[in-house]
Order: sequence, then C-alpha cells, then structure tokens
Amino acid sequence: MIRVGIVGGTGYTGVELLRILALHPQVEICVVTSRSDTGQRVDALYPSLRGVVDAVFSLPETEALKNCEVVFFATPNGTAMQMARALLESGSKVIDLSADFRLKNIAEWEKWYGMAHTCPEFVAEAVYGLPEVNRESIKEARLIACPGCYPTSVQLGFLPLLENGMVDASHLIADVKSGVSGAGRKAELATLMSETGESFKAYSASGHRHLPEITQGLVTASNRDVKLTFVPHLTPMIRGIHATLYARLSGDNQGKLEELQSLYEMRYRNERFVDVLPAKAHPDTRNVKGSNKCQISLHLPQGGDTVVVLSVIDNLVKGAAGQAVQNMNLMFGLSEDEGLKTVALYP
Amino acid sequence: MIRVGIVGGTGYTGVELLRILALHPQVEICVVTSRSDTGQRVDALYPSLRGVVDAVFSLPETEALKNCEVVFFATPNGTAMQMARALLESGSKVIDLSADFRLKNIAEWEKWYGMAHTCPEFVAEAVYGLPEVNRESIKEARLIACPGCYPTSVQLGFLPLLENGMVDASHLIADVKSGVSGAGRKAELATLMSETGESFKAYSASGHRHLPEITQGLVTASNRDVKLTFVPHLTPMIRGIHATLYARLSGDNQGKLEELQSLYEMRYRNERFVDVLPAKAHPDTRNVKGSNKCQISLHLPQGGDTVVVLSVIDNLVKGAAGQAVQNMNLMFGLSEDEGLKTVALYP
Amino acid sequence: MIRVGIVGGTGYTGVELLRILALHPQVEICVVTSRSDTGQRVDALYPSLRGVVDAVFSLPETEALKNCEVVFFATPNGTAMQMARALLESGSKVIDLSADFRLKNIAEWEKWYGMAHTCPEFVAEAVYGLPEVNRESIKEARLIACPGCYPTSVQLGFLPLLENGMVDASHLIADVKSGVSGAGRKAELATLMSETGESFKAYSASGHRHLPEITQGLVTASNRDVKLTFVPHLTPMIRGIHATLYARLSGDNQGKLEELQSLYEMRYRNERFVDVLPAKAHPDTRNVKGSNKCQISLHLPQGGDTVVVLSVIDNLVKGAAGQAVQNMNLMFGLSEDEGLKTVALYP
Amino acid sequence: MIRVGIVGGTGYTGVELLRILALHPQVEICVVTSRSDTGQRVDALYPSLRGVVDAVFSLPETEALKNCEVVFFATPNGTAMQMARALLESGSKVIDLSADFRLKNIAEWEKWYGMAHTCPEFVAEAVYGLPEVNRESIKEARLIACPGCYPTSVQLGFLPLLENGMVDASHLIADVKSGVSGAGRKAELATLMSETGESFKAYSASGHRHLPEITQGLVTASNRDVKLTFVPHLTPMIRGIHATLYARLSGDNQGKLEELQSLYEMRYRNERFVDVLPAKAHPDTRNVKGSNKCQISLHLPQGGDTVVVLSVIDNLVKGAAGQAVQNMNLMFGLSEDEGLKTVALYP
Repeated sequence: MIRVGIVGGTGYTGVELLRILALHPQVEICVVTSRSDTGQRVDALYPSLRGVVDAVFSLPETEALKNCEVVFFATPNGTAMQMARALLESGSKVIDLSADFRLKNIAEWEKWYGMAHTCPEFVAEAVYGLPEVNRESIKEARLIACPGCYPTSVQLGFLPLLENGMVDASHLIADVKSGVSGAGRKAELATLMSETGESFKAYSASGHRHLPEITQGLVTASNRDVKLTFVPHLTPMIRGIHATLYARLSGDNQGKLEELQSLYEMRYRNERFVDVLPAKAHPDTRNVKGSNKCQISLHLPQGGDTVVVLSVIDNLVKGAAGQAVQNMNLMFGLSEDEGLKTVALYP
Repeated sequence: MIRVGIVGGTGYTGVELLRILALHPQVEICVVTSRSDTGQRVDALYPSLRGVVDAVFSLPETEALKNCEVVFFATPNGTAMQMARALLESGSKVIDLSADFRLKNIAEWEKWYGMAHTCPEFVAEAVYGLPEVNRESIKEARLIACPGCYPTSVQLGFLPLLENGMVDASHLIADVKSGVSGAGRKAELATLMSETGESFKAYSASGHRHLPEITQGLVTASNRDVKLTFVPHLTPMIRGIHATLYARLSGDNQGKLEELQSLYEMRYRNERFVDVLPAKAHPDTRNVKGSNKCQISLHLPQGGDTVVVLSVIDNLVKGAAGQAVQNMNLMFGLSEDEGLKTVALYP
Repeated sequence: MIRVGIVGGTGYTGVELLRILALHPQVEICVVTSRSDTGQRVDALYPSLRGVVDAVFSLPETEALKNCEVVFFATPNGTAMQMARALLESGSKVIDLSADFRLKNIAEWEKWYGMAHTCPEFVAEAVYGLPEVNRESIKEARLIACPGCYPTSVQLGFLPLLENGMVDASHLIADVKSGVSGAGRKAELATLMSETGESFKAYSASGHRHLPEITQGLVTASNRDVKLTFVPHLTPMIRGIHATLYARLSGDNQGKLEELQSLYEMRYRNERFVDVLPAKAHPDTRNVKGSNKCQISLHLPQGGDTVVVLSVIDNLVKGAAGQAVQNMNLMFGLSEDEGLKTVALYP
Repeated sequence: MIRVGIVGGTGYTGVELLRILALHPQVEICVVTSRSDTGQRVDALYPSLRGVVDAVFSLPETEALKNCEVVFFATPNGTAMQMARALLESGSKVIDLSADFRLKNIAEWEKWYGMAHTCPEFVAEAVYGLPEVNRESIKEARLIACPGCYPTSVQLGFLPLLENGMVDASHLIADVKSGVSGAGRKAELATLMSETGESFKAYSASGHRHLPEITQGLVTASNRDVKLTFVPHLTPMIRGIHATLYARLSGDNQGKLEELQSLYEMRYRNERFVDVLPAKAHPDTRNVKGSNKCQISLHLPQGGDTVVVLSVIDNLVKGAAGQAVQNMNLMFGLSEDEGLKTVALYP
C-alpha cells in the first residue's frame, strides 16, 4: 500500500482526489490537511465520503507529510512551491495539481501568476504530467506538475495536428467552455448559482493564465512558434470541459477527413484514456463525467480548409485529480488505470 | 462469473444497470435487448460505455435469455409479466425493476396500472426486493420485484417509526421530490429541458401509482392500517430523490429526539447502504449521487409532536439499478456491496 | 411622478425593485444607495439595466433620502430599523422589505433575529404589507413591513381554510421549496452553483425565522391558536417558491373538493395577483416567473380528509419587490397593478 | 389597434409572441391557430398567459386570418410558404419567423431545408427582417423574413468589421452557444432535461442550416466573398445565445482596440436594441434574458491580429419573437420599441 498525503483537502480537486483514492486498491490515505478545518473529520465536511474515508483534517506540516511516499498538492497556486523542497529531500514524491511547476519560463510564470517563484531550482526537474506526452519521464519523476484542466483538453485535441505539421500554427483558435467547478470552492459572488445558472459568458477573453501553459505544450509538440487565441467560457453546469479547436490545414491536407481521422486514431491507439470517436461525431461532456477519459472527434466543414476538433474531459478528473492519480500509478509502477476504471455517470 | 441478461437496455435504468454491471467483478453481460435498437452496438448509443461494454442490442427473445442465470427487466410496466414464466421455468432467476410484481393485491395493481395482469400466479411468490426488510427471503428467491424509487426513499424513512408504533399511522405525509430522470428516457414534451429546467411543480397530487406500493410496505411493517398522503414533485435536476416525511408522535414519544435517533441508528446499524446522519443534519441528494446509499436524518421542530424525517437516495441507483444489483448479490451469495462500492460524485 | 429612494440597491431584491420601478410610469428613481459600490453607476454593476436606469450608487444618508416621497429598504435585517424614524418624521413613507417590522411580538423578533430591536416604538404602527389581507390599512400606512417570500406563499395558500375554520389548526404542515436567489447576493460557499446545482436539500428543518411570521398571520386569520410545522428546502433553480400545504379537514368538510374550490375562488375573486387554478391542477413556478402572481390549486387525495394546497410565487416579485411596489401603488392611490403587468417568462 | 393573427401559437416562439403582444398597447390578438390544440383556450395550455390572453386556438384557415392586418408565422419551416400568397393578396402583411423566405438563392434553400419551395415568386420581394440592416425596406414591406436566432447574433457581431473591410473575410469563425429552447417545443429525446442538463456539446459541426443565411448577410455587408466556419453548441440553459466570433484583422488594423471600439459604437449609436459594452467587457446572456437587446463587446488578445467579438441575445426575443414585433412596429409606423421595453430578468 502506498502511503499518500493530500495537502489542501477541502477544495474540489482535493475532494475528488479523496473520492478516487478512497477506492484505489493500492493506496492508504495517511494525511489530509486543511488549515481552515483542522481537527474536523473529513466526512463531516463531505458526507459523500462517509464510510470510505476515515481521516481527520490536520495542519499542513512537513513532518507528518514526510512519512508519505507521495504527497498531492490540491492547493491554491503558491503553496506547493513552499513545501516541495523539504518533501523531495526527505524522499517523498510530489504531485502538484496547482500551477507552481508547470511553466519552464519562470519570468513568464511570475508575470501571469503575480508572485515571485520561491522554488525556481526545481522547475527544470519537474515533469509536466501529461502521460500522453511524457509517460516515460513521469515514470522516473519525483516531482510532477499536473496540467491544468483547459490545457489538458486543448493539448490532447491539437497534438496530432501539431506533431505532424498539418496546420498553420500561427493562427490556432481554442474556444473552450468549462463547468463552474473549475472556479474552485471559494466563497465568491461570481460563481453563485444565481450568477452562473441559466446563463453563459466568456471570461478573461483578453488573456488567461492557461494560455502560456498551452502554448508551451504546443511549441514542444510542433517544434516551432505557435500563435494561439484562447477564449475560456463559463457554462451553467458543474463538471465538464468542452474544447472547440480551429486550425487551417496546410494545402495538401485540406479536405482529407479520413486521413486526419486515421492520424488521430493512430496517435492515441494505445492510450487508455483518450478515446477518438468516429469522424463527425459530437462528444458530449456528460459521457466523460466522473471518468478519466478524454473523448475527441474531428470535423471538416465546408470545403475543408479548416479543421474543427472537439475535445471533452471532466475538469476535475482528467483535468485534475484523475490525471494526478494516473501520474501516481505510473510513478509507482502500477497499472495506469488502477483506481480509474469508473464509467461516466450518465444521465 | 454470473451470466446476466438485461431486457430493455436503452432506458435510464437499463443504462445504469450496464454502468454498474460493467465493472462488477463477478458478472458477464451476455444479452442486452432493445426492440428499437436491435443490431446496434450498445456503446454507439451510449458513448459513456465505450471500452467497458462490448455488446450489441438484440431482440428480447426468450431463447437467448434462458442461457442467462439472471435476467433483469428494465422495461416499461407490462413486459416482465409476459416473459417471467418462461425464464423462471427454464431455471433463470428474474429481477424485475418495473412494477409488475410489486403489489400483492392484483385487483389494486390492475386499477392503478390500467391493464390486466397476465401472470398473477407468480405475484405471491415474488419477493419485494427491499433488502433492509426482506434480506433472507431475497437470498432464496427466484423472482424479485424491485421497489420503485419513491417507495424506497419513503419506506426506509418511515420504517423504524412504524415498526415500533411510535406514530399515528392514520395521518402520515410524504412530500417527495424527484429529479427528472425518474420520468424515464421517452420523447415527451413534459420532460424537455425547456419544460422542467428552472421550475418546480407537484404532479399526480391527487393520486400516484406508488401510493399503494408504499402503503403495502408500511402496513406490513406496522401491522395495522396506514393512511398516507403522498405528493410527488418534479425538481429541476437529473438524479436524486428527497423525501420529507411527517408523522405525529404518540404522546409519550413527543420531544424525544435522542431516543428516536437511537432507534434509527439501531435499526440500520448493520445496513451497508442506509446511513443515519447525526440528528438535525440535512441530507443533500448530491451526497448520494451515483451511489447506492440512502442517507437519513431526523428533526423534531417546535415542541416536538411532529417528527420530520429527511431521506435521500439516487433514484437510478438505490431507487432502481443499484438496488437490483444488491438483490442479485444476495441471490447469488456474493458480498452485498459487490460492484456497489462507488462513492457519490460530489460536486 | 413619485420620487423614490432605494436603500440597498445591490442585492437581488434591490435589483428587482430597479427592474420594476424603471418601467413604472409614475415613478422617478432619485436615490439608490450601496455602501460597497458608492460612486459607481448602477448599470455598470448590472448591465441588464443599461438604458433604463441612469443612477449612481450613493451612501445611505438620511438627508438625501428625505427628499424621497417613499423609501424602499432592500437591506439585510437590522438596517431599516436604524433609519425609519428619521425618514418617517420628515414625511417620507417607508416600505421595508426586510424583517425589521414584521413581528408584532418584539421579544420573539429579538429571539429569532438575534439582535436588539432599536425601533420598537414603530412596530405597532407598521402595517404588514400583504394586500390580500390588509389592503385598506396599507392605503393609509406610512410604514409597511413587507412579508417574507415563504410567508407570502404559505399565507395565501392557507388563508381561506383558516379564515373559515375548515381545518384542524393544531396540525398544519408547510413543505416549501425555494430557488436559491432567496438566499440573497452574498459571497457564500453554500449557494455556489457547485454546491446547489443538481441537488436538493432541506435546511433549517428544526426552526426557521419565517415560522413566527407565518404563524402570526395564520393566528390573525383564524382567530385561534395555530400549530405549524414548516420545512424550507433549497431547489436547484434561481427564482420561484412552491409551497405544498397539508391540513386535516374538520369532519363535515371532508371529501368536498368542489366546495373548497368555490371557497378559494370567492376569497380571491377580486384579487388581481392571486389566481386560483382549476381544481386538481398543478401550478408550476415557471408560470409566475418574473410576474407578481400567486397561482394556487387544491387537491383532496384518497378519501379526502387531508387537503393539499399548492401555491407558487416568484420569490423576488410577489415574494419581495413586486409586492413592495403593489404596496406603494396602494399607498399613493395608483392602480394596484401599475408597473406590475408583466407576464411570466415562459419557457 | 392592429388586428394580429398568429399561426402556430403553441411553439416557444409562438408563446413568446403572445407574451409580448399581450401587453403591446397597439395590438389586438384576433386569431391564434394550432392544429393540435384547436378549440382549447390558449391560457389552458399556457397558464402564464391567464388574465392577459383571452383567445381560443383555431385551425389555421386563411379566411379568418385575412381579417388580420398582419399575420405572424411561428411555424415549422414549410408552412408559411403555403399560406403567404393568399394572405398577401388579400391585403394582410406577413411576418414569417420560420426560414421559408430567408434565402434569396432558392436552390440553396431547397438543398439545406430538404424540400421544394412552393412560393418562390415571393422570395425576391421578401425583406430580410434585420432592422439594423434593412430598416427602410422593412417599413415598406408586406412580407418579412425574420432572421434566425444564430444569424442575428452572428451578423450583428460581424457587421461593422465586414462593412468596413477590416478583416480577412476568407477565414471567419463563429463559435456559437445556444440554450435548448432554440430546439423548439417538440417531443424529442435529444432535448430532454436528462439529455441536455449538466452537459455541453456541439452539434451539426459539419454543417448547419443557418450557415447559408449568415453567409448571405455577411456577403451583402462586405460586398465580397466570405468564408465562414460556423459551429453551433447546445448549452444547459433554456434561453440565450452567446456568439464568440474570431477574425484576422488586416495589417493596418492590428492592435487597435480603441479604433475598433469606436467603429462599433458609431455603427450602433442610434440602435435601440444593440448595446456596445465597454471594450474588454464580457456580455452575459442573463443580461438580455427576456429583452430584445443584443449586447456586444470586443477583445484583442495577445498581439492583436485576431479580433474576438462577443455577442449575446435572447434567442426567443431578439432572435425570434421580439425582432418580429420590432419589424411589425416599423411596418406600421409605430415607435420601434413599442411593446419591447422590458428589462432583462436578472437574476
């Protein structure tokens, strides 16, 4: 049994980790921290966990966490970078679900996240935890930077095109829609039911923190400059991300839907959690709700010089906690889908 | 491996059975029938099942079903009673999720369901599949009548009071609220998103089919006449039932919340799927969404002559498919929670 | 033109007042106060009001408000009682949408609202602003205590029964469901979309502040003691209240649905905003959304000793801002429905 | 008073017409037809209209309709073209909310709508009812083809750019999200609450009927070829459309957000129903819900060669019934906003 610690167990990604790890056959949940709820039983705050999680929230102290073989950070940005060094040096592995170690360019990180990076010396070592790209490195890593929810859906959708130079990388568009759980469990006006229910809007259309993360990934995949317009939207549901991606095909690839379809199927044929639907299908976020899957489909509307990729995930699973556990499985030599076999909750 | 057949695999209870059984370690799904979708792959209709269900819809023919050790009917009322005899006589067990075998009084069944019963000779034998009441009979049964969703939530909430004669059984009130998936997967105006979203209403307030089923269960439990007013409501969500139950305490039980709380905790202390919350808690349907649990709490407002019981379930799980699998586990000597260990999907 | 001031213009009842008053042909909005947003344009905070409200939030200062002929308080409890005296003495009328002047029993008010009442001398004078009960007093009043949302729906539903002594007043049950806008526009975890969407729960089942207010009204109507069990619920929608009311008919009234129906139709035949539906109908909150109407229907299930009354309103309109404007119309001798003719927004 | 007829009064656009026209001071509703509900009171089917609509559904017969000065068709495609000739020849004006007269190219219409056009001789005469483009022609018209909901939001968003040649018209992208009421009031599986609630998906991504209509409008505006990729999406809410539009600015327009902002403000400065928000704002569909407004904002993310236009409407108002009434007002010399002054219902 792997001894696991969770720092920040009261946010939605923290609870989702608990939901998944509680049933993971190789895991023992040893420490769950929460500054605000220290001393309270976890299942008193989250009655959904009654009977499966027998833990009490503790303060986030390094000593207790050092006894864990792996520590997940489901914390706001800026916390993991304070504690990572001590844990790594004591031999624990660290899987960070926040943004602290995602960007290799520290100056850019500091610009978008508005604070000084306090642990820059580990940024280079940190492995970006997208198994479909970095599986082998993840297996060897001791520090994982888990991708954001938007970046997961967008990169998985664009990768085959960019890795193979099929499109004009200077004009990519990602129009992405997220459920409100992506905003986290914070007392804020903007995500009240009365403010977000029965309504739809874009936000951060002039610039969102996930842009440099996505771009970094696409540049790596395509090995050239990438220009992306990324507009996130808030959709009146709790879970789910739907990315609608647009790119102009280079001349000799236009109109060839079958070839593109084959390309995607080949790229992901061994991926347990990326499911390429038949051409012209329309993935629906409900079909991945609660599961660790990404479902993708392709369209070539009118004429076919613009490819449309539709990519859906559950933002809390493949976009956060599920992907984190997938990384853990790889790091500890387990079957990649251990604890992640759940089927989406439909309807 | 238990060879399983599902008749009526395209409704919401059918799909939910597939979701649960696909991951059940002791089950092999052999036959899934659907008149309307015969020949089509199950996962083409339900992409959430891609990768876990490798079946094709077939016609509901007795011959194929006879090879199954157990056949689930997730059909409209009136179907199971046509096919049960042949299956039972060939040695298959039958678990009926419809209403065909729920009422012992056939005349009353025919009145409420508006058709002649074509298999009355099996009604007496059929075991009402509420394990918290009939566990031992279920183990021996070959024909199970699974309770309706409303009746499950109401009976589990009222049982301790009625079994112990604590309340005036001549004036019970069940004000129950259901998500719209309870109406099934049928092309109907009344359950369109535009008709049910962002709105709340009662329906069948003058009389609903689940009334005689609930009454039958409460009469059995209390061993005397019962008079119940039952008003179902449609609430703008997909899954979940919340029963708010009211009863007048007989004189010497008034004001004694602690005693009532103990009574409930004792009654359900060995029940894996009935979870009595601390007194004065408020169960939330989200905390059982996707799980087979019933969560219950007690209140004694002002003065305390009226007890208020709050009881929540997921209508498709403990109210239908999950409870059916719980019955199957009992019938085949498996652990009662095999395949049913999932944690509710929160948020 | 009536010069109007609104204290607390940033909550949902405040914005709803602005929506209604902006199109009221006899009203000029002179002052809109907000401590937190002083100096900001109202329509910058609420883009829905662009083009119809040309006001800037100001501090809640008595001097400016004294120039208003009527001042609405859409404030948290405890504010109106601080400012009412000065305004009334300067000749302004006051319409309080908060609870400050609703309860005649000051000790009870202080118990439920957890603070000392600072203006008890006006409590007796204040007229409870339910026009269907107090129309003539409202016309003469200078201080109106607008009913709460739950109390409006419950009282309108119960009144004909209690005024005519038809039921056992010692055992009334009000099971009421509210949309989340009833919780107000406050940054709180409990009303986040992720916490309230797709879920249903009761709250304050052991005791809610609106209980004494409802009881006070029912006692006045029936002229005897009343015992009410009141359980409020949160339903996953934004606007709307659905009250399901249960009462036992006294012996000679049992089973007589037609007589009860006539009673309700007679009681409300001249009421512009109370609409008695045909017997056995099911009112739907959507049919009053955005309108000032209450729709009511009656049922007598099985046997008929228990009458079920269904009563729906929009909590922000007939349950708050609309009813406040209805009161203003009466106080200023206008047509009672001036500014309130809008039709519900369906679907 | 203008005598008005409505053909197809039972769909969502029909009911929305009734909601608006019931309070229109210059209109008398004379005929409301419905094949399926002939003989029934309108307010029996739609209790939201009780007290304001005193009409009975009749069969759609030309004789009765000829007495109307104007007849609205809120019918499925293919109906208006059957009845328009007789009405026009008898002197009635016709406002068609369906697609029958929207496309000038009849062959293209027949391709996308899958039927032969039975009234091609009126197609040329029909005026496309987008007042912001065709106001003067509308005033003189006797036959109006009301724009579709998607086309209204997309055209109003793109027009200033295309009329002024600011962008590369060969690569326009419209990623548009609609509430489910846009699918109409039809008994269909796909728009059940259980199928559309809490989920998000694209549909018709390879080609949607509104594409040629939008393209026709954009070609007219820009006076050159236009290549548009249009992907519609279904979002889990009832009302509202949010268009996110992307275009590449031609070289000397890049990076100039202020100039673009001025361009939009100038273009729409006299438009009562198009509201250009401050630059970098994010319009929210809730802020136009129930109103006839279109709210628009502009963004120039990173670098500024791609302009992002956000445009929101209520699909049933500015996208259908409200715009139809706006057309009627123009045709009859009334104030353009008569009957359309309602403020959006927030929250």
